[in-house]
Amino acid sequence: MSTQNADPRAELKRKAAIEAADMVREGMVVGLGSGSTSAFMIEELGRRWAEGLRFCAIPTSERSAEQARSHGIRLVTFATHPQIDIDIDGADEVERGSLNLIKGLGGALFREKIVAAASRKFVVVVDDSKLVDRLGARVPVPVEVATFGWTSTARQLEALGARITQRMDRSGNVFVTDGGNMILDCHFGEIADSAQLQAQLAQVVGVIETGLFIGRTSEVIVATATGLQKLVAA
Amino acid sequence: MSTQNADPRAELKRKAAIEAADMVREGMVVGLGSGSTSAFMIEELGRRWAEGLRFCAIPTSERSAEQARSHGIRLVTFATHPQIDIDIDGADEVERGSLNLIKGLGGALFREKIVAAASRKFVVVVDDSKLVDRLGARVPVPVEVATFGWTSTARQLEALGARITQRMDRSGNVFVTDGGNMILDCHFGEIADSAQLQAQLAQVVGVIETGLFIGRTSEVIVATATGLQKLVAA
Repeated sequence: MSTQNADPRAELKRKAAIEAADMVREGMVVGLGSGSTSAFMIEELGRRWAEGLRFCAIPTSERSAEQARSHGIRLVTFATHPQIDIDIDGADEVERGSLNLIKGLGGALFREKIVAAASRKFVVVVDDSKLVDRLGARVPVPVEVATFGWTSTARQLEALGARITQRMDRSGNVFVTDGGNMILDCHFGEIADSAQLQAQLAQVVGVIETGLFIGRTSEVIVATATGLQKLVAA
Repeated sequence: MSTQNADPRAELKRKAAIEAADMVREGMVVGLGSGSTSAFMIEELGRRWAEGLRFCAIPTSERSAEQARSHGIRLVTFATHPQIDIDIDGADEVERGSLNLIKGLGGALFREKIVAAASRKFVVVVDDSKLVDRLGARVPVPVEVATFGWTSTARQLEALGARITQRMDRSGNVFVTDGGNMILDCHFGEIADSAQLQAQLAQVVGVIETGLFIGRTSEVIVATATGLQKLVAA
């Protein structure tokens, strides 16, 4: 199956996702990330489920929930499983050294962050094109904001130095998150102090959550043309 | 009408609300607070609207919107009116000196805070029972949190020293905000540094907004048994 895949980058991501799925052991509570890399990971977990591995999972998006369900994977909620053993997710940028992340270009940042925050171990899977020396250089920081008063919220974000684009969906309508909010993509350029920026963004009234993941990463599995690489938080 | 009111405290609040309504001038964009004091204020604005005063209003709750609509007051949104001239609202506690507030026992804290943040002037109307030397002594800090993962969010709030009660509605069901979220009432006791606590709470993943209003108050109109008192931010 995998050998028929024409996109070499997709094949690399799949290998990294399989490596991450390998960390899931019998009886664990597993956070399921969102996005293309997570889709490979859920596919692999589905294969292992079919082979008899038993665990339960908390998905970070409706799409991941659906995919897991299609494999018969047992889904649970925080109400019965407040502590997650391992959360496996992708990222849009990973900063070398700090392993801080920008996430949420897929739109599921809020649930992704809640699940990451509730997990003993947070494993990130990316290909090496996502590694950067400084966050923000190539991708914006997605910021989930309430629809009510969003223009006022946007002006406060601009005051922090953001150039803002409003996220749209493929049909050209305003993108709506699973939580019913909207996303403002905030272009800051290279971010000198991402922890400080996160603290400032969190204080802006109207901001639900941001795509800056600071100090949360346990381990990054990086797919490179020459094999897999592991980065571990200092 | 007002002289027939049996509750002396309600009568005091009505007088203070009328004083606040007096600040609304022709052509202004007005933020309409929520709660019992705001209801008096909206009633008074309705009276003035009937007499010919024209302004437009952005309500902070569905209930306030409904009341304003019943008086024929013109309601607008942020989309067309991003800058609010004056926002008038109640509070659950007002700290003497700093004029910092605890708000949101009524459940509309998120919209109330967004409107306050977008206003040139933020006027708070209370009776003198709401004045305290230190916030948090008598009322909890309401914290609006996402339903998804709320038990994990609650544990993070407890780690900051909160004793938590989950807000219920009158029917005994979990209270749901206008934004579709829930409220955790966080009892901290007397809060030594409310600005610092607000910064910490804002960083908790899963927190939408808190009822701590720090450095936002322009003026407080206090109803006392002997008359009205005005407190102005230093």
